[in-house]
Amino acid sequence: MSEMRKDPVVERWVIITNDALRSPSISREKRIGEDGLDGTDKQRDALCPFCPGNERLCPPEILSNRPDGSSPNDPDWRLRVVPNRSPVMVVEGDLKRMGEGLYDKITGVGANEVIIETPKHGIRQSQMTCDDLENVFWAYRDRMIDLGKDSRLRYVLIYRNQGSAAGATLDHPYSVLMALPIVPAMVQSKIDGAQRHFEYKKRCIYCDILQEEMREQSRIVSESRFFLAIEPFAPRLPFETWIIPKRHISSYIHTEPGEIKDMACMFKEVVSRLDASLGRPAYNCILHSCPAGNTPPGLDQYYHWHMEILPRLTARGGFEWGSGFFINPTSPESAAAFLRGIVL
Amino acid sequence: MSEMRKDPVVERWVIITNDALRSPSISREKRIGEDGLDGTDKQRDALCPFCPGNERLCPPEILSNRPDGSSPNDPDWRLRVVPNRSPVMVVEGDLKRMGEGLYDKITGVGANEVIIETPKHGIRQSQMTCDDLENVFWAYRDRMIDLGKDSRLRYVLIYRNQGSAAGATLDHPYSVLMALPIVPAMVQSKIDGAQRHFEYKKRCIYCDILQEEMREQSRIVSESRFFLAIEPFAPRLPFETWIIPKRHISSYIHTEPGEIKDMACMFKEVVSRLDASLGRPAYNCILHSCPAGNTPPGLDQYYHWHMEILPRLTARGGFEWGSGFFINPTSPESAAAFLRGIVL
Repeated sequence: MSEMRKDPVVERWVIITNDALRSPSISREKRIGEDGLDGTDKQRDALCPFCPGNERLCPPEILSNRPDGSSPNDPDWRLRVVPNRSPVMVVEGDLKRMGEGLYDKITGVGANEVIIETPKHGIRQSQMTCDDLENVFWAYRDRMIDLGKDSRLRYVLIYRNQGSAAGATLDHPYSVLMALPIVPAMVQSKIDGAQRHFEYKKRCIYCDILQEEMREQSRIVSESRFFLAIEPFAPRLPFETWIIPKRHISSYIHTEPGEIKDMACMFKEVVSRLDASLGRPAYNCILHSCPAGNTPPGLDQYYHWHMEILPRLTARGGFEWGSGFFINPTSPESAAAFLRGIVL
Repeated sequence: MSEMRKDPVVERWVIITNDALRSPSISREKRIGEDGLDGTDKQRDALCPFCPGNERLCPPEILSNRPDGSSPNDPDWRLRVVPNRSPVMVVEGDLKRMGEGLYDKITGVGANEVIIETPKHGIRQSQMTCDDLENVFWAYRDRMIDLGKDSRLRYVLIYRNQGSAAGATLDHPYSVLMALPIVPAMVQSKIDGAQRHFEYKKRCIYCDILQEEMREQSRIVSESRFFLAIEPFAPRLPFETWIIPKRHISSYIHTEPGEIKDMACMFKEVVSRLDASLGRPAYNCILHSCPAGNTPPGLDQYYHWHMEILPRLTARGGFEWGSGFFINPTSPESAAAFLRGIVL
């Protein structure tokens, strides 16, 4: 079983899987990616574990979108959710907190699932239909609701790596779900910041950002009925883009059907603009929702879910690692103008 | 002039250079790297701006190590420090703090220098002599002392990118110095953590880590007279290695000549072990010293400088970006055993 360890100075958690198959000391071909998937599969696409007909290569499905009359684990699906076959965290076992000299660690209790977004191997999200993407965003919601019932799990992180430069292991479209026994540092930092703002102003900071961006206009990439896509004021990376619901919704699980439909089309538009502008870049998407289960009181008033899209255009170096901040050569105003100008 | 912008939620600073030459919307060949260096130089090594004979391609040197009788900017140097010719931050100009609607920004006043470590193009640090490395570590100290006198600058960050996967632009050995008007988030987080520990225990947390690691032994990579090299308890990356002075020294500028000589050989040994174990990996080095100038009172009691070496073996994906923590497939205990076992 993997374990989570805490840095005693900065209180940053890491998951140590200590799995021989994941070790960089063995050959690169055998190495398993950060997403827990087996990189060797890349060399044999005929055996892509996510392609229809190869369902036996994955553990039995947890959820799927299928036509009436279709049976679980049969090939005629539109979307499938399966446990990762070499999971980083496992649901079985007790959550144990342990000391080791000066240090703290926790057993790696959690969940690690894969959302197989479409049967079509090798396509990008910009090539998926709005309906396909709507299915994906429904699956996110369903799995978040289900895993939120497990009181040991504090946070359900859903993310997507597009392209090997962004950490993707396979060319088949998939998202990764990681349910964790702690709230990750980055999420906690957002919660703390939103709480500080709320205590001071009695307003949600993301609602204030929406208002400011609507007034300012220059950082807007696109606006739909229920969502705003912006380049944030202080982007870490060139063309970093956020999609934020206009309505104040703290948890993604409270997003309504009409909103999810609208979000699917908005998302397709944004990734199409990025693909057209930047030559189909590698990117990461991260869904930032509020923690599951027993959240701090008042969190629903001051937290506001959003999605971050982070194109990975340049190798990041020591400055970022050493300082925790970023040199970005492209202002959000010029990136937004560039993305708006693309004719789709 | 570049500007620094603050994310209003997590209070993370970014530097927006908004330089056309650095923009990813122009061709990759023309793009300037994160380190501010011009990637086009890579294609014409005969014109490497850091090679002896090409001194005219850099701004006039700030510091150099030369034989007696040699003149500044002549080719017979052992080490040179030059301003970056397309600097991310510039020393000229006033430090202005400005609001923009909801947001905060500061003018990009700072310094951006390059430490050209050796005249030899294309070698790695493991191939440099202990004397070469001692010169490099002296240059770090000299520049940190000099820039620490400018009261506008709060932090001098010195780092090194080895290999393009770690953000290096040129194949000539160089380190980057960035002097900043703010204390970077990662550094502040270390200061805060060390302060918390000191308030509670009245001891330096890094001294406690040294004691724990000496007792535990399993994470030690190497020990010299004045330094300990360890794999930290909660490493973000496989084979992440820290070099810590055994004596409590808060600022790198207080390191003594004998310690710098010892550190050079210790550093050479550590990078040689990494190069031999991992097939000459890309890596980042970051020197973590305490802030320059008016530091919080008592900082010298609880902060303890150290160097982090971060091999860049795998593409990092959305999990890390989304959560601020890390999945590491290699435990520090097995990494340390592996590195110790290498015969140099």
